[in-house]
Amino acid sequence: MSESPTSAGRPLPWTKLSSRHEPSLLLFRPRWDKLVNPRTQQPMDRLVLETPDWVNVVALTEDEQLILVRQYRFGTSTVTTEIPGGMVDRGEAHADAAQRELREETGYAARAWTYLGAVEPNPAFHDNLCHHWLATGCHKVSEHLELDAGEDIVVYTEALTRVAERVRAGEIRHVLVLSALQRVIDLYDTTARRRNHGPHAD
Amino acid sequence: MSESPTSAGRPLPWTKLSSRHEPSLLLFRPRWDKLVNPRTQQPMDRLVLETPDWVNVVALTEDEQLILVRQYRFGTSTVTTEIPGGMVDRGEAHADAAQRELREETGYAARAWTYLGAVEPNPAFHDNLCHHWLATGCHKVSEHLELDAGEDIVVYTEALTRVAERVRAGEIRHVLVLSALQRVIDLYDTTARRRNHGPHAD
Repeated sequence: MSESPTSAGRPLPWTKLSSRHEPSLLLFRPRWDKLVNPRTQQPMDRLVLETPDWVNVVALTEDEQLILVRQYRFGTSTVTTEIPGGMVDRGEAHADAAQRELREETGYAARAWTYLGAVEPNPAFHDNLCHHWLATGCHKVSEHLELDAGEDIVVYTEALTRVAERVRAGEIRHVLVLSALQRVIDLYDTTARRRNHGPHAD
Repeated sequence: MSESPTSAGRPLPWTKLSSRHEPSLLLFRPRWDKLVNPRTQQPMDRLVLETPDWVNVVALTEDEQLILVRQYRFGTSTVTTEIPGGMVDRGEAHADAAQRELREETGYAARAWTYLGAVEPNPAFHDNLCHHWLATGCHKVSEHLELDAGEDIVVYTEALTRVAERVRAGEIRHVLVLSALQRVIDLYDTTARRRNHGPHAD
């Protein structure tokens, strides 16, 4: 059985009857939409978190080390290992946000920038994208970080091969970090899985 | 310059002074924590969205096609192409949730299940994990889907190679979908990027 993704024009977009904002939650602004389910014709209230675009950066030094940041994360209540990144400011280009976040969070600047594409952090309730950037030839331009009052960050560098090992060991598991890294290095041994459990992709 | 991730014991966890819940937003429950930044000793209010764990499933049919779902997503206001998935119910094992979501959303059951690991959807404000599962030998067990009132889903199947092309064309970009798929098939040509812009990972 194989059905075309556009068979009979379904699924249809939902019709919006009304929208109501709630007070900002700093990182995003909740909005309740009243929408009609085209399958049932019933109206439903659905939540959207209006969220600015995000950026993150796979940043490699001149001696080919990956720049990492460690910080306490409030969601998981743990110290995580991640790549630098943050929110795109209002009116700012995401390319500029990537350079700014790298400089503010790590004190590094890059010789060359390559766009790696964008992902949807969660289309079910976020309206934003996360843009991935590759920064190469990175070098220190500042010894002190420009941290927000809400940040406490430790910067360090590590060989890419060691980073891939950390991913496979489950020590780095923020999905937006993995998504950016995966566009620069292979993180998983997919071949073995396909051989054991499924078809070959090529 | 390379600093150990644990240098001087930093970054430290933040001390929680108090917690206050807001009314549930259906998908999650907002909680404001008052925390002390160990770098500045200043208290700050930080938002956590308490969220149940999620699951998603890379499901392959007996004739080696990937099972995909198309649905209207309220965050992006677009129809997306994704793999099946959803929330783990209270008290439910995520392995059971994966089997339930596959059956409810697509009408398929699998002969074999392989755990692909978990990721943090966003440790900055979510406290949950998304568990990735591989389901092989999938076959139809029901012709009608068990959809929630808030769902309108079209199911179809497609060759894995075609799915990888869709990813590279930017037609599939939900990061949790990409994260699961990446553990079964190679989605990106990382070698060319490293050759052009950076070091080799191995």
